[in-house]
Amino acid sequence: MKIQQVRGTRDFYPEDMAFRQWLVEHWRQASRRAGFVEVDGPELEPLELYTDKSGPEIAEQLYWLQDKGGRKLALRPEFTPTLARMIAARQASLPEPIRWFNISRCFRYERAQKGRLREFFQWNVDLVGVEGEIADAECISIAVDLVRSLGLTPEDVQVKINDRRLLAALVRHLGIAEDRVPVVFGILDKRDKVPPETLSVMMAEAGLEAAQREGLSRILAWKGLGDIDAQELATPEVHAAVEALRRLFGFLEAYGIAEWCRFDIGIVRGLAYYTGPVWEVYDLKGEFRAIFGGGRYDRLLGELGGKAMPACGFGCGDVVLGLLLEERGLRPEAQRSAEYFVAAEGDSSAGVLRVVRHLRERNFPTQYDLKGGNLKRQMKKAADAAARFVVIVGPVLAAGGTVTVRDMQSGEQREVPLESLGG
Amino acid sequence: MKIQQVRGTRDFYPEDMAFRQWLVEHWRQASRRAGFVEVDGPELEPLELYTDKSGPEIAEQLYWLQDKGGRKLALRPEFTPTLARMIAARQASLPEPIRWFNISRCFRYERAQKGRLREFFQWNVDLVGVEGEIADAECISIAVDLVRSLGLTPEDVQVKINDRRLLAALVRHLGIAEDRVPVVFGILDKRDKVPPETLSVMMAEAGLEAAQREGLSRILAWKGLGDIDAQELATPEVHAAVEALRRLFGFLEAYGIAEWCRFDIGIVRGLAYYTGPVWEVYDLKGEFRAIFGGGRYDRLLGELGGKAMPACGFGCGDVVLGLLLEERGLRPEAQRSAEYFVAAEGDSSAGVLRVVRHLRERNFPTQYDLKGGNLKRQMKKAADAAARFVVIVGPVLAAGGTVTVRDMQSGEQREVPLESLGG
Repeated sequence: MKIQQVRGTRDFYPEDMAFRQWLVEHWRQASRRAGFVEVDGPELEPLELYTDKSGPEIAEQLYWLQDKGGRKLALRPEFTPTLARMIAARQASLPEPIRWFNISRCFRYERAQKGRLREFFQWNVDLVGVEGEIADAECISIAVDLVRSLGLTPEDVQVKINDRRLLAALVRHLGIAEDRVPVVFGILDKRDKVPPETLSVMMAEAGLEAAQREGLSRILAWKGLGDIDAQELATPEVHAAVEALRRLFGFLEAYGIAEWCRFDIGIVRGLAYYTGPVWEVYDLKGEFRAIFGGGRYDRLLGELGGKAMPACGFGCGDVVLGLLLEERGLRPEAQRSAEYFVAAEGDSSAGVLRVVRHLRERNFPTQYDLKGGNLKRQMKKAADAAARFVVIVGPVLAAGGTVTVRDMQSGEQREVPLESLGG
Repeated sequence: MKIQQVRGTRDFYPEDMAFRQWLVEHWRQASRRAGFVEVDGPELEPLELYTDKSGPEIAEQLYWLQDKGGRKLALRPEFTPTLARMIAARQASLPEPIRWFNISRCFRYERAQKGRLREFFQWNVDLVGVEGEIADAECISIAVDLVRSLGLTPEDVQVKINDRRLLAALVRHLGIAEDRVPVVFGILDKRDKVPPETLSVMMAEAGLEAAQREGLSRILAWKGLGDIDAQELATPEVHAAVEALRRLFGFLEAYGIAEWCRFDIGIVRGLAYYTGPVWEVYDLKGEFRAIFGGGRYDRLLGELGGKAMPACGFGCGDVVLGLLLEERGLRPEAQRSAEYFVAAEGDSSAGVLRVVRHLRERNFPTQYDLKGGNLKRQMKKAADAAARFVVIVGPVLAAGGTVTVRDMQSGEQREVPLESLGG
């Protein structure tokens, strides 16, 4: 009987795992370069950690179970609520600002499709305790550092940046009622996914008047902050939001990453909890939806039971980013499983083990043929492992004995005393 | 409202996470030195993957849920069934032997206590496709490599080794009926946990005759293979099992790890699926139960739906090992979160960012004060991050400008041109 894996989950055979670990290591290094430290929490959390934040309907999109005591436990769909819980539990003693990153396995019970799985990995970077745009710039700089370290260029990807406060101010300036704002944000969020006509229809259905629809369409056509007209800029709320964005872009310039970043009034970010700058990393060819993104969420930590603290950050999943890297040919070559393969010529198994020990003690990944086949078979095994060197051990390996080392790429062979092997 | 974490799970604040990552990295390096490659599977598996192997009662000890289609899904309690499923799915194409390791988060719904949690991490090493004792020796050598690399010595821990076939042959030699063998194995497994009198009572309750009880007690007193008497050795089954163990100890000698290893007739390993050598790593002070262990399981892969393949391996959890390392003072110092801290003297934020970029581009974990406080406050932040160096940037940082670098340990300061900083 063959049991199938659960739909939307993945098996990681060696080549898949090497890719996953390569990506995880780049996430980790980009975080550490910015002086962030790694944290983690359980994958099993009380269900109410998510329903308290997002409402009971979120349970439909989660994997959850009831334990023997009737408690409802969920597989975490994201790390942020755990982060909030952990900060709340120690908020008196944690030095600020909090610079934390996390690399999590997360689970969402939604339709599995290209770029969207039910079990996936996510990198989270959060900077808690700093109000100014410098903190948003620090987060964006980590995101850029990551994509650059993976081999992507500003011709491949761009960070599109907006500010929720600017959007809100403009919508109010157009005279759109406060209770329409979430609907309007939802429509704007669809901007790149539907044709302009559909967008107009959606605006009409949302009850917007012709002037408001026309105003929104004009705003969506902006290419930069310079397109904002004088009348709008004269509105104090709009003015303040534009000033904040200008400061943010000033910091991004100082970070040396301006060429990766652009203003985009259409960036909304679906999640309701953002309160300031929001941004998404896009591929310029437009083959994928947003690769990842983040923003400022100054109210969330307070709402989730701790004290209110300014915070910003981002999350980056492995699935869409992995597809992009694959498509761009940036997926790394498969790792070799051994640096050295030690082969026996004739009956020399004790000598083989001595050489194996010598190499492993010097930290070289080393394999040998556990079944002790003939030399031809052993060379085949060495090739399977993509070994860089094969060490051939003869029947007599005395204290001062030598071994033959073959460079598998050049085919060159030389005699080396055991003591200096790998030294 | 404060939400508590789920019982038996852990939050990993930076210091806990650093320890976990340190341990995981040692697991990974010990595996790689032996030419093993990393694999992984889902954490959510079909429940029958476990009930098919261990019977329906195992579900009581698992976390599982029913999905919208009525399928029962379990959080994996161990990696081996996933390994078996993955090998079965590709067994025609995987080159043998299969040398795989895995580092998993696993879940068991049992009583949480010291050394036993409901969510834990486990390292699995499996070597599939080799029948001989050399494969068992290879696995044991990886286990020894790990404990040595963590700083433990043969005075701290020992690998106690037995063979299921020897135990079975001896039990049969004592005339104990075949259907009593599992009960007897269960009693032997308790040897170190209960006093000898209790052991005798348990044997009597299991229906063993006086001669059989006396025989078992005598066997349990053996210190080495030399204690086996001639009559027993004359039994072909016992003889073959002893020869196999002698070969295994010969290989362990050749691996140079004989001082870490000893024969122990009392090692049984609870799990039913072992078919040959079994072993456990113990602390010699006896403060902990077995730290980890493994053995040969030649029938399991066939039973779990694939073709039968000889296999051996082991699993090592993070909880008991972590307690042992802590108790022995081998837990590493907390990591510093930044190598460099860049401080501003006066109004020099643009200069600070230039220095930060310079250092991060050279891969140094680098922090600075995002709130731009005075120099005293910045030095405090540098100390919080345990930074090795503080770079003090003055108001004017020209192209050829210099910065002041303070070594935080020695207190020494020197002027350095920016271009050569960290070079």
